[in-house]
Order: sequence, then structure tokens, then C-alpha cells
Amino acid sequence: MSIKKDYIRPLDFKNGRVDMNHGAGGRASAQLISELFARAFDNEFLRQGDDGARMPALPTGHELVMATDGHVISPLFFPGGDIGSLAVHGTVNDVAMMGATPLYLSASFILEEGFALADLQRIVHSMAAAARAAGVPVVTGDTKVVEQGKGDGVFISTTGVGAVPAGRRLSGSLAQVGDVILVSGTMGEHGVAVLSKRESLEFETAIESDSAALHTLVAALLAAVPEGAVRTLRDPTRGGLATTLNEIARQSSVGMMLEESAIPILPQVDAACELLGLDPLYMANEGKLIAVVDAAHAEAALAALQAHERGKAAARIGVVTEDPHRFVQMNTAFGGRRVVDWLSGEPLPRIC
Amino acid sequence: MSIKKDYIRPLDFKNGRVDMNHGAGGRASAQLISELFARAFDNEFLRQGDDGARMPALPTGHELVMATDGHVISPLFFPGGDIGSLAVHGTVNDVAMMGATPLYLSASFILEEGFALADLQRIVHSMAAAARAAGVPVVTGDTKVVEQGKGDGVFISTTGVGAVPAGRRLSGSLAQVGDVILVSGTMGEHGVAVLSKRESLEFETAIESDSAALHTLVAALLAAVPEGAVRTLRDPTRGGLATTLNEIARQSSVGMMLEESAIPILPQVDAACELLGLDPLYMANEGKLIAVVDAAHAEAALAALQAHERGKAAARIGVVTEDPHRFVQMNTAFGGRRVVDWLSGEPLPRIC
Repeated sequence: MSIKKDYIRPLDFKNGRVDMNHGAGGRASAQLISELFARAFDNEFLRQGDDGARMPALPTGHELVMATDGHVISPLFFPGGDIGSLAVHGTVNDVAMMGATPLYLSASFILEEGFALADLQRIVHSMAAAARAAGVPVVTGDTKVVEQGKGDGVFISTTGVGAVPAGRRLSGSLAQVGDVILVSGTMGEHGVAVLSKRESLEFETAIESDSAALHTLVAALLAAVPEGAVRTLRDPTRGGLATTLNEIARQSSVGMMLEESAIPILPQVDAACELLGLDPLYMANEGKLIAVVDAAHAEAALAALQAHERGKAAARIGVVTEDPHRFVQMNTAFGGRRVVDWLSGEPLPRIC
Repeated sequence: MSIKKDYIRPLDFKNGRVDMNHGAGGRASAQLISELFARAFDNEFLRQGDDGARMPALPTGHELVMATDGHVISPLFFPGGDIGSLAVHGTVNDVAMMGATPLYLSASFILEEGFALADLQRIVHSMAAAARAAGVPVVTGDTKVVEQGKGDGVFISTTGVGAVPAGRRLSGSLAQVGDVILVSGTMGEHGVAVLSKRESLEFETAIESDSAALHTLVAALLAAVPEGAVRTLRDPTRGGLATTLNEIARQSSVGMMLEESAIPILPQVDAACELLGLDPLYMANEGKLIAVVDAAHAEAALAALQAHERGKAAARIGVVTEDPHRFVQMNTAFGGRRVVDWLSGEPLPRIC
């Protein structure tokens, strides 16, 4: 039938570009959804094909967790990942940091007119692969298109829903004086990988983003210690380790004392930061966590992290102190002591 | 203390503008969150202050519903609403169309550098008021900032979570031959209000967007008929009534026959559409629903809609037919018959 003909011409994923029709809610929108999104993310919930998705009740004895993250990273493709995989990892990790099992994701795409369908396809496929690897399906989504010059290729906002045992409490507000501060691995790769790609810098040793889902690492950690021993989990993304520790210190009204020599940093990250005039403690991570743990169980927690593929370089980097000023301080490698402040001054934009 | 000083200078909501620091994850981000978002949306879940929010389990015997929508409407302020209230209504309605009670919202903001903080504040306050009026709190959120010329003021992606009784099934795929098609009110106001504001057109009679939350209307409708009598609920947003009915026809493999004279349209919307060369059947709605209902219960359903403040102009506009071509057809006011196709041709961009 002639009136169906523009629908049966398949999308041109080789040379095609996003146009305003793809966001207008008509036939072109439906085609983009069916030929790209529905196919790539395919799962029983998305297949319902309604304005939302319907899933089973949470497991008995569990409460609901919800987290959301907008992703505007530039460039869209970077060593070790792209905005698609990052949009899965970022939100899966936010849910996991609540001590919850991530169950479902939603995705909202804001596309710029003229964006290459080939790039969009590559991003969606990467996102779908990350979701599948994490075992967390994208169950519902939305796509909008803005005019050229009103967006930047693609922005992706993801929301994650998870289930947490009703008795479990993890929060940035629960750190206690005497607790031990652990990190799950080396700091700063994501930020340095993105910035060096943006500046077209090449280093002798390639630096890849650490972008990864951490929910199995969290599960291993929580299984290794009694309930309550892990006070706080946080992934040090924007603003890096320094800023995230300051957030926790503020929330819990405590101070922190770090040992600079104990903070794991890859030599090539250190070198790149020196070249760029940056501090690795402020560089974003997308596959690492900070755990504040009851000192009595810190050894077991550290061992559990180190036994997991994503936590091999886990380390004990400091302790929680009493401090009415809520300062994060650090004994430096040179024997001095300094305050590790929040990120301020020059921002590092669009790192996630 | 000098190192805290930029934090204690409050944000300038009169003359200030969004800068890249507000999205960098450091102190400026924390300040924007605490002085604007946390204050406006304040609720017990958001107050937890972590990377996600933790809420009670769903009511017993209920399943989980999740829906997401990106909002990129231009202009940001329009007669009858703004992007903030729309971002609440749009997602609350998507959850409600599943037959679910909307419980929680998340919000992801993508801000453009240079955007006036006064406008952002106005939008956030409107959004918070809409969430409060709907009784659906914004429990978690995220803010990113992109460079001037890489965004357009503000984009807001909201995700809603709701609870639906385990035995209830509503879907675009459940329309049956013989079912009756109802609409909850007049069609096309939102689209016409936004387009006329964009084109700076003034009409003798003001046309306001119908933007509104529909979950109490849905609850009233579902309570008035036996479980299963309402097959499908959809809000005819982008693409309007015509496109949404085509979606349902395709999902359910049925046809539809509409009566043009029965479709409620305000005279001023008709007049504006004629002036703009547009068809009201393709104009977006943000506070109306389509219900496909078992014919045996159509009268009761219509009465329930009409008895509700948001459904006073509800009407029966057609029936579901057997049609292997899945055409939506219409008996016109002039005694003819035509196919009501999907939206195609000139898109109406950024209407929501």
C-alpha cells in the first residue's frame, strides 16, 4: 500500500542521519524504535510495547531503590568505553552503592538533528551489550530530537530501579569515627582517558577508562562482612576521590585522614596528570568504589574486594576521624600533611 | 574559613547564570543542589542525600511499573505550563496509563551554560508544585551542564515508578473488535498553545495547554467498571489522537472507525489549526487520555470520566473494527470517509 511505503524502507544505518521526524512521534519515530532500540535492547518487558513497562513485584522483604544519571560525556567514544556503556554502568553503580541489587533500567535519549545513525547504532549496541553483561535490562525508553546546534550528538539519561533487603542501611551519613576507608582499585583512569582523548594527547602507555558495572563487587563485599559493617559505599565519579570523600565527611559530620602513599594510582595516570596539570585525586572514576567500613571488619572487606576481578588493586587508604570542621586531610608522601578540599577552580566539564 | 567562602555566598537567583562549575560535581554542584533542588523538592527520600533513594516496598499484591520521558519542549514557558510541570505530568501520565498508581519520580536535568538561574528556579518551583499537587515526590535526581550552544536552556528527563495490582492488564495490544473508543476531553490544546507561542501568534480566545496529571482520572475510571473492561489507556501526546490510535491499531492488529463529529475540539483550536494549516487530530495533548473499553461497559466508563474534573468533556468517538490493514478510518462531518494516517510529512518538533 502506498501509504505504508516510507515505513517499509529500512533505516540507512550506513549513511543516514537523525532528522527531526525521528523525534516527532509519528512513523519515523516508530521505525527508529523498532529497527534500532527494540531490537538492540530486546527483553520481555520492553517487548510489551506500551508507554511504560510492567515488571514483577520486588522480592519479599526488600525495599525499592531508585537512582538516575544524565550522561553528556564528550567525546562520545573514548578509550575503554562510550556514552552507551557508561550510561549503563553509571546508573547500575548508583543503585549498587545503596547496597541494592540493580534490576531494571530506563533510558531517555536526546538526539541532535544530523547525528550519524551509524554512531547512534554503535552507541545503542554498546549500551545493550553493557546492560546484558550486567544482567540489568533496559525495560522502557524515550527518544527526543532537537535541532542542530541545540544538542551535542546524544545525551542519555538512565534511571535504575533495584531491590535492597529491608534491614540493610548504607548511606553517606553513616561513617563513624574510627572506620576504615577502602578503595576498590586505582584512581583516575576514566577522567584521564576522556581528557586525553579530548585533547588528542597520546601517551606511551594507553590509559583506558575503568567504566564497569560494580554490582557483583558490591555483592561480594557485603557477603563477606556482617550486616552494618559497611557504612557507606560511593563511586567517586565527577570530582573524583577527593570530592566524594568530602561529601561523605559532610554528610556524616566527621573528618578523614588519608595516607597519600596508600592511594593506588597507575604510574601512567600520575604521569598524564603531571603533564596536564591535574590532580588524580580529582579525576573521575567509573568503575571504582569507596567503602567506609567498621575497622573490626576492614581486613575481611579488603580481602573480599581483592578477591574479585574488579577489586584486585583494592587498598586501605585512610581512617575516619573526629573533626568539627569535617576536613579531609592527607599525610603526603613527602611527610607533610594537607587538606584535600572539594573540587573547585577550573571545572572538568562533561566527564560523564 | 577562607576555603569555605565560595560555598557560603548564596546563589544569585536574580542575576546569576548556570556555569560549567554547576555540573562539575564539586562545591558549586553541591550548592545548586542544596539551595535549589533539595529545597524545592524536599521530601523524606530526597533528604537521604545519597546517590540514589530508598523507598518502602510496593503494596502487597502489586507489580512494578516504570516509565520515562525526555522533555525538550521549546519554548520552555508556554500558556498553561512550562517544562517543569510538563516533566511531572508527562511521566505521571505514562505510569497511570499502565493502570498503575504513580509513586515516585526521578529527574535528570541537562542545563546549558549561561541559562538564567531565575528561569531555572521558576522551572524547578513549578515542577515541585506539580509533583506536590500530584502527590508523587521527586526522590532522586542528577544535574549536568553542557557548554553554551550544546544544549538549549534545560532538558529534563523524568522517570516514574508505580504500583499496579498484579491481576490488572492494560495494554495497547488488548483492543478487541467491537470495543468502544473514548477520549477524556477536547483534543489539541497543548500542541496549539505551544506552536502559537512559538510563532508569537495571538488568538482572540487564549488557548492554554491542557498539561495535567491524569492518575486520579484513571483511578476513577478503573473503579467504575469491572477489571478487564478497560483494555487500553494512552495519552495522545506527540502525534496527537491520530498517531496514538494508529499505534494501538497496529499493536492490537485491529482497525478503527471514528466519527469526526463526535471528537471534541474547542472552536478556538479548530480556528487556530485552520490558520496554521494543521490538523487538530495530530496536535499533542498533555492532559487527555484515550480509553479503549469493552462496549458493555462503555456507558459506565464514559459517565465516570465525565464525573471527574478532568473528564467533563469526555466523549465516545468511535469503535474498534476488524481490519487486516489495521487502518484507522473516520466518517467525516461532511458524510465522507477517510483514512486517518500516522503523522508524517512536516514534523512538529519539540512539542513536549
